Amino acid sequence: MVTFDDVVAAVNRLKGIANKTPVMTSRNLSELCGVQVYLKCENFQRVGAFKFRGAYNCISKRLSQKPELKREGIVAISSGNHSQGVALAAKLLGVPVTIHLPTDAPLSKIEATEAYGAKLEFFDRSKDDRDRIAERLISEGKTLIHGYDDPDIIAGQGTAALELMQEIKGIDLIMSPLGGGGLLSGTMIAARAFNPQVKVYGVEPEVANDWQLSLAAGKRISIDAPKTIADGVSLCAPGVLTFEILKNQLDGVVLISEEEIKEALKYVISRMKIVIEPSSALVVAALMQGKIPLGGISKVGLIISGGNIDPKLLSELYSQP
Amino acid sequence: MVTFDDVVAAVNRLKGIANKTPVMTSRNLSELCGVQVYLKCENFQRVGAFKFRGAYNCISKRLSQKPELKREGIVAISSGNHSQGVALAAKLLGVPVTIHLPTDAPLSKIEATEAYGAKLEFFDRSKDDRDRIAERLISEGKTLIHGYDDPDIIAGQGTAALELMQEIKGIDLIMSPLGGGGLLSGTMIAARAFNPQVKVYGVEPEVANDWQLSLAAGKRISIDAPKTIADGVSLCAPGVLTFEILKNQLDGVVLISEEEIKEALKYVISRMKIVIEPSSALVVAALMQGKIPLGGISKVGLIISGGNIDPKLLSELYSQP
Repeated sequence: MVTFDDVVAAVNRLKGIANKTPVMTSRNLSELCGVQVYLKCENFQRVGAFKFRGAYNCISKRLSQKPELKREGIVAISSGNHSQGVALAAKLLGVPVTIHLPTDAPLSKIEATEAYGAKLEFFDRSKDDRDRIAERLISEGKTLIHGYDDPDIIAGQGTAALELMQEIKGIDLIMSPLGGGGLLSGTMIAARAFNPQVKVYGVEPEVANDWQLSLAAGKRISIDAPKTIADGVSLCAPGVLTFEILKNQLDGVVLISEEEIKEALKYVISRMKIVIEPSSALVVAALMQGKIPLGGISKVGLIISGGNIDPKLLSELYSQP
Repeated sequence: MVTFDDVVAAVNRLKGIANKTPVMTSRNLSELCGVQVYLKCENFQRVGAFKFRGAYNCISKRLSQKPELKREGIVAISSGNHSQGVALAAKLLGVPVTIHLPTDAPLSKIEATEAYGAKLEFFDRSKDDRDRIAERLISEGKTLIHGYDDPDIIAGQGTAALELMQEIKGIDLIMSPLGGGGLLSGTMIAARAFNPQVKVYGVEPEVANDWQLSLAAGKRISIDAPKTIADGVSLCAPGVLTFEILKNQLDGVVLISEEEIKEALKYVISRMKIVIEPSSALVVAALMQGKIPLGGISKVGLIISGGNIDPKLLSELYSQP
């Protein structure tokens, strides 16, 4: 479905375009957890999130297959980092892009997406849903750049883990946040190519446990729209492709409460001095809360997915003494 | 007074102890300013600030000259990063330490200092001042670790600029925040050793313009206790030694308003995804506001002094939409 060769091809497309983000360590976090912890900091990626990798890889490949996209343009549906990733990638590649956003998308994300030159169209979440809009756009012949359920998106996201495994030798456990599954699928493919024995965990909010339920049931299960501060992973069901990739390969899925997300967020911002978004706090919380079996493990890699935290949440986090 | 050899000696003392902090760039900031901008990120230093470098260098040297300090202990007076730097350095070197803090010091700094194992003593700012306490402690035979007016402190602080100049070749302008002057003195000595023509600027708040006044007058001038959010540089007068080092060597001192500090703080936190303290925002603001002459300049180094921002300020910064 997606192979390590696809990830390597993505590395070549992204060369000189995506940031080779730094890997950071924290003396304190490593001591707390009893293992060496390495954070692959995609909060320092262009648009502030890993999503740029997959978007650029995918659009770049589509364009090489179909040059007329420079005239026809592409479309995407997202209110989050994917919209910014697609908007910037399309701009750099000279491809017109229309992003479909829900009317209640955060203003900061709307403005950022528009600033990259994307055309915006709004839909009402109460009257329409993403899947229906996607079907309609595809039936109209549009080239839709999916947020996660696409081999080229997955291969692009895998380049973050590839860089981490190249830079830090001997990582024996790796984790990423789990929403649609694109980041974790790419992470698993890249990491296992370096070390077939590497443990791979996904982390999702307790209130958005669609992956946990789906893996237990052996099939994709939908939950009601979850209410979590980890907006980046607030999805109702695993992707079709990503579920196929991950279902028999994952070492586990760990659940994190909203309070635990906040605690990890504050820890990283206050102690490590880097700004991360709530979805990224999931993987830090999984370690801090001792939810990952660490027997025989000495080096843990965490994919920090992004840094686009809602300013209001940042304010609220620190409003109490 | 202080030479590059002293900075090199400090490098050797700090090896394997202080963090070699990362140098970060920002595509957007460099485009905004029309020069390549490099941030030497001492917010990722131990205790969250450059102060650890000077403190460790100084205490380590004192201890080699006077081993009985392991029994006698040392003292420092500070409510800020210096107290944490001294406390951690003393702990690592096995030296007992007493920190004198004002009764109104922020609770977060008090707790952090205590967590490093320091003994705390409090003084009432309205009844006593630092200089008098310093005199008393010295007259009692105590070994006082000064916050900036000490050759070994200055040499230690210079190691940050040394690392930056080593890593990024061809920096032709360098800046640091200007409070007591220890960081800028060390920065100048280190940077000029690599490139005698490098431009060196200091940046202070408009409301804490003691350096600007002193340099204009050719002698140290005291101002009333300044009210600035840049607490790290909120001092009334230049140091004696630091003024001697800097007075005929600086290319200029730039003043930044409180609003400009806040704007730069928000820019760095929101866009660059790193947490910095208000004093560090000074150097970013100096560039963003076009206050530094950049003719003929292509690479600018900024010493980001630390990341210990008051949580309340962080909350307030983002409390408005």
